[in-house]
Amino acid sequence: MSFENAIHARAILLDTMSLEMCAESGSGHPTSAMSIGHIVSVLMYRTMRWLPEDQNNHTSDRLVLSEGHAVPAVYAAMADIGATVDWNGEPVQLNREHLKTLREDDSPLDGHPNPMEGVTFFDAATGSLGQGLSVAAGLGLAARADNTGRKTYCIIGDGEAREGQITEALDFIMDHELTNVLPIFNCNSYGQAGAVSEQQSPARLAAKLEAFGFEVATIDGHSPNEIKASFDSFNKDGRTQPMAVVAKTVKGWGAPSMQGGNWHGKPASGKQLETVLSELRQTGTKLTSSMAMDSIAIPAPLDSAPHVSTVNTPMTFRQAMEKWDMLTMLQSGKMATRRAYGVALRALGYTNENVWAVDADVSNSTFSNAFGNDPELSDRFVECKIAEQNMYSVGAGLSAAGKIPFCSTFAKFITRGYDQIEMAINSGANIKVVGSHSGISLAADGPSQMSLPDIAWFRSFGTIKDRHGEPGCYVLQPADARAAYELTHVMAEHIGCCYLRTFRPDVEMIYDESTTFELGGMEVLTQGRDVVIVSAGYMIHECNKAIDELDRMGVDATLLDLYSLPFDEERLLDIVNENNGNVLVVEDNYGASMGSAVADACTSSGDAFTVKQLHVTRIPKSARSPESILRMCGLHYTDITQSAASLLGVAAT
Amino acid sequence: MSFENAIHARAILLDTMSLEMCAESGSGHPTSAMSIGHIVSVLMYRTMRWLPEDQNNHTSDRLVLSEGHAVPAVYAAMADIGATVDWNGEPVQLNREHLKTLREDDSPLDGHPNPMEGVTFFDAATGSLGQGLSVAAGLGLAARADNTGRKTYCIIGDGEAREGQITEALDFIMDHELTNVLPIFNCNSYGQAGAVSEQQSPARLAAKLEAFGFEVATIDGHSPNEIKASFDSFNKDGRTQPMAVVAKTVKGWGAPSMQGGNWHGKPASGKQLETVLSELRQTGTKLTSSMAMDSIAIPAPLDSAPHVSTVNTPMTFRQAMEKWDMLTMLQSGKMATRRAYGVALRALGYTNENVWAVDADVSNSTFSNAFGNDPELSDRFVECKIAEQNMYSVGAGLSAAGKIPFCSTFAKFITRGYDQIEMAINSGANIKVVGSHSGISLAADGPSQMSLPDIAWFRSFGTIKDRHGEPGCYVLQPADARAAYELTHVMAEHIGCCYLRTFRPDVEMIYDESTTFELGGMEVLTQGRDVVIVSAGYMIHECNKAIDELDRMGVDATLLDLYSLPFDEERLLDIVNENNGNVLVVEDNYGASMGSAVADACTSSGDAFTVKQLHVTRIPKSARSPESILRMCGLHYTDITQSAASLLGVAAT
Repeated sequence: MSFENAIHARAILLDTMSLEMCAESGSGHPTSAMSIGHIVSVLMYRTMRWLPEDQNNHTSDRLVLSEGHAVPAVYAAMADIGATVDWNGEPVQLNREHLKTLREDDSPLDGHPNPMEGVTFFDAATGSLGQGLSVAAGLGLAARADNTGRKTYCIIGDGEAREGQITEALDFIMDHELTNVLPIFNCNSYGQAGAVSEQQSPARLAAKLEAFGFEVATIDGHSPNEIKASFDSFNKDGRTQPMAVVAKTVKGWGAPSMQGGNWHGKPASGKQLETVLSELRQTGTKLTSSMAMDSIAIPAPLDSAPHVSTVNTPMTFRQAMEKWDMLTMLQSGKMATRRAYGVALRALGYTNENVWAVDADVSNSTFSNAFGNDPELSDRFVECKIAEQNMYSVGAGLSAAGKIPFCSTFAKFITRGYDQIEMAINSGANIKVVGSHSGISLAADGPSQMSLPDIAWFRSFGTIKDRHGEPGCYVLQPADARAAYELTHVMAEHIGCCYLRTFRPDVEMIYDESTTFELGGMEVLTQGRDVVIVSAGYMIHECNKAIDELDRMGVDATLLDLYSLPFDEERLLDIVNENNGNVLVVEDNYGASMGSAVADACTSSGDAFTVKQLHVTRIPKSARSPESILRMCGLHYTDITQSAASLLGVAAT
Repeated sequence: MSFENAIHARAILLDTMSLEMCAESGSGHPTSAMSIGHIVSVLMYRTMRWLPEDQNNHTSDRLVLSEGHAVPAVYAAMADIGATVDWNGEPVQLNREHLKTLREDDSPLDGHPNPMEGVTFFDAATGSLGQGLSVAAGLGLAARADNTGRKTYCIIGDGEAREGQITEALDFIMDHELTNVLPIFNCNSYGQAGAVSEQQSPARLAAKLEAFGFEVATIDGHSPNEIKASFDSFNKDGRTQPMAVVAKTVKGWGAPSMQGGNWHGKPASGKQLETVLSELRQTGTKLTSSMAMDSIAIPAPLDSAPHVSTVNTPMTFRQAMEKWDMLTMLQSGKMATRRAYGVALRALGYTNENVWAVDADVSNSTFSNAFGNDPELSDRFVECKIAEQNMYSVGAGLSAAGKIPFCSTFAKFITRGYDQIEMAINSGANIKVVGSHSGISLAADGPSQMSLPDIAWFRSFGTIKDRHGEPGCYVLQPADARAAYELTHVMAEHIGCCYLRTFRPDVEMIYDESTTFELGGMEVLTQGRDVVIVSAGYMIHECNKAIDELDRMGVDATLLDLYSLPFDEERLLDIVNENNGNVLVVEDNYGASMGSAVADACTSSGDAFTVKQLHVTRIPKSARSPESILRMCGLHYTDITQSAASLLGVAAT
């Protein structure tokens, strides 16, 4: 049986199974799957080196299906091959019968790829479009660093190619000369609501890719030989120029009655399904004399010892500061949390080989350059330039390859990657998101550089559990350098997503070596009995001044550093109860944030508490100093003092 | 005085003023400003047609400074020209003395452009990078529709050009043949942390732009003649191909000691400032024999009558359903909220000429195609394809031109544009964000298509006031078709950002014509006395079933449709008090959302309330039906019943 016939037969089988499983589930995207039937056949049966029983083998080639909705094609191939999935904790060899469970609540065959539901053939959840190529780039970086010889293939829809993140990933692949990653553009001409724009036509895409610096192969995506030739070219020894494939395909290939613009995301059923299946059979008969299957012959992965990363005892803050000649700063008693984060990241770089630092052209502000500028570590520093979306998905890819990526930028600019971060959380990625210049204390640059609704968003993930049974995300807000140092280490030890929020100004160090920081933790800084002022990060220092003022007024206030969200609610309620149920929460961001988390805890108890919240209640503007902007936003220590006093019915003096 | 000399002299003046104002403020980006001194001089003194005393004149050309940090150059030109700003409510003719207030808390001269702080020369707040070109495209669309002849110029940094949104905007400009928008890439070779990537070099950018379909002029960005020639070419009559300019510039032009990679975002001061200013003077002497200023001669805008949009009395829901032959559906008593939104949008299209519909390739899911497919309205329907970031900034641009853009996509995919939406809110944009398929009720597609932390994020803006004194955003969750119809109209009448959340399934209509919907409103659907169940959107229907169950158990529960966030807190507290302080909040998204908003209100009162929150507490996966996923997430009506019963200490039967 010729290669061509074999692939046609396999593609028609996959197409048939795609149609059947979508019909069974009553939803899904069979026509998209059919447009990649041949590409998937060549990849999964002939080109990719992988082990169906051990898909995460460290040298196995990877497939990132960026257009996740086309996943039935891959599920079909896996079932045909008998690849293993994790079915509620049990390894199961997938078969055709299993495909009937597509999209059922207890099936790992989710509507879109998600390794956390059991299909570990995939490295990351996809389905929110435009993210896969960046994930592939992260996998490619790790493969090169670990010298595994792995190749990563990424299938991208033509309509999807409109997402700007795709061009961010293309630039990134060029910058980092990732010749082990192959973007494959599936040009089936139709999006959901209509035809794909001329801007994403095969010719235009090819011209763009060449302008970006890629070698481009434009092929017939249903020609087995053309597909194979392009993959062989990608895999040729000594490749120095990144390559991309533009594949002209047909949405609903093989079944004329399902082609055209009106079949996106619609399964055929009943009589229609019979018609379509019969059309597919006819197409098969026309193309190949023998529809009999040849034997499955998947190339095995390369044989190499897995890369073992060393992890040593972490350095203490003092040791790190000493090592890098920063004792003077330590002794000065003042240091910005972002600077301490840089020191911690560098220290982690030395003691944990899995830790990588990723930044988006602001490493001299986030201080991740402490890692990047160290010649011992610079191999694991990834400069993404001004393209945050790509950064977080690259982080998801690195995580899928066993790395611990710390992705740093201004807290405000993280917003650009919220969708990517959410998908990373869905993927179970071990990603650390670090935002500097958080809140309003950066002052002069104004609101376009300030993170204000960030706590609300990240905290929302703290109200759920991920598939490891951990909060979807921990929000960590260190108040001083030591806390920032320690919490950076705590993040590295935790498997899952954390958001560390550092700020711009230098502040006094308030913690000594005796304090232990932990996820879910909090720290009483001043013990009082009249009211508890709850705060975190920069605002702790402003609250400290208020505590002194209140003391002068005869108010015995407690100051609680609630540096972690979520937190131990019982412990918080005990502290609140010790303070007559009076709480003032102070934060330098918009509401729905830490104050609401405290309100959630208080109202769940059924007791009477008064929670007053001080947060930013206007869109800030520039001011020349933190003090000036704190006054503008009603968060100056005098405002805090007055709020606490009024809460207690005490006249402010 | 030759044109060339005049522009050199003017550029050196602007550069000098940029240096001085940044020195005065102690922060800012003078070197970036100096790299665009010549471009700004040619634009603002010779090419743009505008009125310094009436910058928002409907035919005035526009400048969008996408790299907002370079704003000192524009402030300098405005001061030199004596353009008007709004200074705390008073019109003030800007002069050189005013520039000293850069970044002060009571100055309109914010760190980055923001029309809401008084500099209405700008249409939108910029500073979070990569967004300006999309804003310019929105302005261009509106200018073409209104036939004002306005041109829009947009200056984009080379490092900034890495942001994927820029390519989204380029594709958009090509799709919509916007020959009235000119992207100008300022290639000064340096980003913040280092040199700009080769991927954003002038040659590479020019090649990319050509591949995107643009006519490209690569020029010396400090050559007055080359700049002018490129702008003249852009403005030539009969242009059919969009054009772009790639300008090679020098960061810190004119002052060698401030050039190179280490001067990003740093002002010179003291002796250094003197040196730099002296270098600038020397550069001037070399370039132009006469540094004397010529007279300022700004071309006046075109003379045309402003376009007046008609706004008529809105249609009622029934009228609209009748007009479009949908009475059968109305009589069926079941309809999805997203479908009702489509009807409302179409009705608005007929009665309010300012209303535009914008979508991202999912108009057949969001039902904005009801507007787009209507030949009477299709001119005001904007297809953005799969590029959400661009969509929201285009919306901001449309809003700046007086339109009311309704931007629709899946609620999940809105996440892609959170940064853009926040900047639109900062800009005071009158933008309506509409997300369909919200929450978990779409079931089968799985979490990559579900909006889950969306309420937390949008609600955060509801805790602040924008510069109109209105909440930064209203979150609206209609429970049925009529509510969706009415709330769409309410949004259109409100000036500011609203987020409307529709869902996929058809649901029963529960409201009749007697109910009035309003921002901040709520509606008691069942009056009880034991416990108030607070919910919104899809979950109202599940709660309704629980109310029946509870009734059978002898529990007299209240059902409150809290369709607006923020809401009238006193009214909520009254209702809670009528129900013994027992509250159960039910929502089909992650926490930190509506339940927290209720907790915020309850704890601020100081009374004892018990608030139990039912929300999604796991990362969902696919399930085949809403019922199945509700069970998976513990939000089935039986779960609601049990929670309410356990809250009251009643045994569930």
